[in-house]
Amino acid sequence: MMFDSAPATPSRGKAYLVGAGPGRADLITVRGLRLLQAADVVIYDRLIAQELLDEARPDARLIYVGKGPGCHSASQEEINRLLVEHVRLGKLVVRLKGGDPFVFGRGGEEALALRAAGLDYEIVPGASSALAAPAYAGIPVTQRGVATSFAVVTGHERGEAPDSATDWDALARIPTLLILMGVAQIGEIAERLQAAGRAAETPAAAIRWGSTAEQQVVRATLSDIASAIALAGLEAPAVIVIGEVAALHEQLAWFRPDQSSIYWPLEAALLPMAREPVLAR
Amino acid sequence: MMFDSAPATPSRGKAYLVGAGPGRADLITVRGLRLLQAADVVIYDRLIAQELLDEARPDARLIYVGKGPGCHSASQEEINRLLVEHVRLGKLVVRLKGGDPFVFGRGGEEALALRAAGLDYEIVPGASSALAAPAYAGIPVTQRGVATSFAVVTGHERGEAPDSATDWDALARIPTLLILMGVAQIGEIAERLQAAGRAAETPAAAIRWGSTAEQQVVRATLSDIASAIALAGLEAPAVIVIGEVAALHEQLAWFRPDQSSIYWPLEAALLPMAREPVLAR
Repeated sequence: MMFDSAPATPSRGKAYLVGAGPGRADLITVRGLRLLQAADVVIYDRLIAQELLDEARPDARLIYVGKGPGCHSASQEEINRLLVEHVRLGKLVVRLKGGDPFVFGRGGEEALALRAAGLDYEIVPGASSALAAPAYAGIPVTQRGVATSFAVVTGHERGEAPDSATDWDALARIPTLLILMGVAQIGEIAERLQAAGRAAETPAAAIRWGSTAEQQVVRATLSDIASAIALAGLEAPAVIVIGEVAALHEQLAWFRPDQSSIYWPLEAALLPMAREPVLAR
Repeated sequence: MMFDSAPATPSRGKAYLVGAGPGRADLITVRGLRLLQAADVVIYDRLIAQELLDEARPDARLIYVGKGPGCHSASQEEINRLLVEHVRLGKLVVRLKGGDPFVFGRGGEEALALRAAGLDYEIVPGASSALAAPAYAGIPVTQRGVATSFAVVTGHERGEAPDSATDWDALARIPTLLILMGVAQIGEIAERLQAAGRAAETPAAAIRWGSTAEQQVVRATLSDIASAIALAGLEAPAVIVIGEVAALHEQLAWFRPDQSSIYWPLEAALLPMAREPVLAR
């Protein structure tokens, strides 16, 4: 078996904050999977693939703490308490989070809680949805001569809220902007970016369920991405890309699940790649 | 064996652009490893773990195209040509790249070359070094109330070059700034960020060989990170973090390889975490 010497030699009485990757089960890391298979307790979020949960030991305790729309969900304080409690009992605890645990995953808060309790933990990075969902839509977040930097932001802070901590003026000047949790606020955010000088015709895309069989892509421009998302009925969670690289979707899209790309406006559907999709799946 | 149905059913006559993750072999994805094990041809970069190359079939052809200091290295055109040539011969080609193939990896250019040749390809995301190296230094790139956005940039564009395409004024305003390939230019970049209004005392860190047994961390401030890197003798490649989150290293550092963190200035070494390192390895 490969990597016999490399894994963590999983320890009991320790928490592993594991990134599950963007959604597709086999995009978890080898290390993350090994730890999941060894875990006594798995504390997991919404949007974790069932195939991953099936990898846990039959006698492992699985605890769901996801935040669903309209559902009761565990507060961050409850999650921190659960982590500390099970590690204190000497368990090997895997905290399984979508994407990467340190990218908008509140993994930092969980690590601080474990640290404050004097307990051991390890971070197991994952492929962040912010980058991997665009990749599954054929959109590289950087491209030589097109985008030499990118920024990632959460849309939870509304673009126009006067108390917003988010500096949309600065973000408007970064070549590639990746917005997580922004579907509900995209109208305001797009207006805010245009007010800051970003061109209305800047290419934009939204990717829902990136990397899974349910992947949906909407391609539009900064000025019409909000209406395109609404008309396509594309709901949260999605990753929104603003920047020239979004236009590479037409040339580079390679992943075509059954519910394939929705092009917006319709003329884009006449581009060569849209007519001759690469059936990579 | 797990995920029997999930993998790509690897295809011959196709290129897989696979992200190997930040350096540690077991941080490759399950999908990436499966494809590597199936490959006829592996075209790989510098800094790929030997344990990964050992996973290739004994009869696989391994082609090194890395860019080493002072060595002849394959040009991007040569790499594109190699990819196209082997895929045309009907081979299952894995293009193994450090980090994520679509983050400063020129994966977009390789995909465009394959596309132009009418050939099939797939992108296999990986944990980007830009995020995973900080995680291995205990630095979350986002943190509630501290950093709700981050930006990633390459230091190849010098901060003061008048023709630079990089908007350092905008980047100076993003809470967390992650600089790849910036060791040689960090002095100029740090001055440029301070000239743009970023405080001299902003926490900063540099992580070399993140996630590997050779990991080295230097902690300093924006104004002294360049001299701290020079005095520590920390060489490229490294990820540089500028922002409040860098200070979380003192509390959250969990990975302590033999050559452990170098604190700068020395007073930082007196913080509680530095005195009581968590020996997680």
